Amino acid sequence: MRFGKVAVIGVGLIGGSFGLALKAAGRGGPVVGVGRGAANLAVALERGAIDSVASDAAAAIRDADLVLISTPVAQIEKIFLSISSKIKPGAIVTDAGSTKRDVVAAARAALGEKIAQFIPAHPIAGAEHSGAAAAHAELFRDRRLVLTPLKENREADIEALAGLWAAFGARVSRMTPEEHDEVFAAVSHLPHLLAYALVSDISARPNAAQLFGYAAGGFRDFTRIASSHPEMWRDICIANSDRLLEEIAFFSRQIEKIKKMLATKNAPALEKLFTDSRAARARWLEGEYQ
Amino acid sequence: MRFGKVAVIGVGLIGGSFGLALKAAGRGGPVVGVGRGAANLAVALERGAIDSVASDAAAAIRDADLVLISTPVAQIEKIFLSISSKIKPGAIVTDAGSTKRDVVAAARAALGEKIAQFIPAHPIAGAEHSGAAAAHAELFRDRRLVLTPLKENREADIEALAGLWAAFGARVSRMTPEEHDEVFAAVSHLPHLLAYALVSDISARPNAAQLFGYAAGGFRDFTRIASSHPEMWRDICIANSDRLLEEIAFFSRQIEKIKKMLATKNAPALEKLFTDSRAARARWLEGEYQ
Repeated sequence: MRFGKVAVIGVGLIGGSFGLALKAAGRGGPVVGVGRGAANLAVALERGAIDSVASDAAAAIRDADLVLISTPVAQIEKIFLSISSKIKPGAIVTDAGSTKRDVVAAARAALGEKIAQFIPAHPIAGAEHSGAAAAHAELFRDRRLVLTPLKENREADIEALAGLWAAFGARVSRMTPEEHDEVFAAVSHLPHLLAYALVSDISARPNAAQLFGYAAGGFRDFTRIASSHPEMWRDICIANSDRLLEEIAFFSRQIEKIKKMLATKNAPALEKLFTDSRAARARWLEGEYQ
Repeated sequence: MRFGKVAVIGVGLIGGSFGLALKAAGRGGPVVGVGRGAANLAVALERGAIDSVASDAAAAIRDADLVLISTPVAQIEKIFLSISSKIKPGAIVTDAGSTKRDVVAAARAALGEKIAQFIPAHPIAGAEHSGAAAAHAELFRDRRLVLTPLKENREADIEALAGLWAAFGARVSRMTPEEHDEVFAAVSHLPHLLAYALVSDISARPNAAQLFGYAAGGFRDFTRIASSHPEMWRDICIANSDRLLEEIAFFSRQIEKIKKMLATKNAPALEKLFTDSRAARARWLEGEYQ
């Protein structure tokens, strides 16, 4: 199925890539974009991710068949409020937020009876580069796209949206918003926080320059995600703070175990931990959990 | 300067790459290797990293001008004891251990008056692949090589060894063994431990398969070093356990601060932490601390 007019609210890495992928797949257009940064919107226009710029979200979604909200999650409630009365009957509204319970709560608070038209989604396609300049049509290929549909959604709409993402090359699956936030707290939000924590820990030392001077490839990869978008990650951490605190507690218990192994110089226990971790990661890399 | 016979004790990624780099630079040979795994030694021979295999370390170092010990660090003391009486006058003995205080202590305990011939060293060139099959002549190019010379070492020997590593493309610098172990506890040993801890934390969950199923690129890079060699990392963690426990304590204080930010939903503090970390990492990537 082909969508007509598509509105992209927030034309960053995800929104820009969505526009480019939509056109590459011939699945819709024109694309109207709206965003906070004029320079970024100019890049998005020049790169063909969007065809025109609207003055605000309400103007952008006028007559749109499909609306993608791809801003940091804390902005989504305000956007829902501003567009609620303008959503075209039959249109699908979706998002790209990295947390889902907060987005769903915002939608329920703001959209009223139009809640049935909102299908929450999360493309798992982060990168440390952000903005329309980093967008590309292939960003979603072989990446996961998680839908967390609401009981009010029409199954035909869910399938239309799933089909669109599948056309971009994404592997589409479904879970509940609660399950989503629990899973991503563990495998995405916690690692981001740990990476940011390590860099800030090192930076704050009197000998930070020396420490960074000897940091090598392992440090570089471990901290790559500490170059992620600060505002986006602020919003994710706030929206999912309860699950994230649970994950920190789990992780801290693991660290306590390791501290005991170190304090008692328990070489066999450390070697077993490392061997088991390496084996688990190898199974993961080999696709055992796909 | 060109070395004559070179002995490589432990022909893994580092030892094998050393042999290949030595030959590529025309700085020495023949290279005699010794190691625990016959299959690995056969690969090293076939790839030209070594020219012959000796039955043990004492046999390997006979008449050698240069001896590299590149085994996991816990094995080094036993090797020192076995070669101590056989070291050729004027020969240089060095190592590639990732910890230095323990190696220096072992050398002092085992080498007696020959301690002057031992120059401790650490090439910063890890990889998640290990063994002679992963070795290559360019492994050390643009990587750091840290010497932690002893007061007994002859300056001419230190310079000869530094010159050899420089010929392999390494950036050679010096520090004390104490300073070395403190620096690498922070920027290498701690991140390795955190990566292993996260993978083992996830693996132990009842829903591990689901969690791994949604882990993406950020998780992959963050945990790359959890695919490192378990025995090597066991030895490093044991040898440097005091400094590593200090680093865990520093890091845990940082995590406690972040927990408070999450519990109080302190968005500005989180954003500042993320912004500062990203900026520090950007300065590091731009080479400000080289």
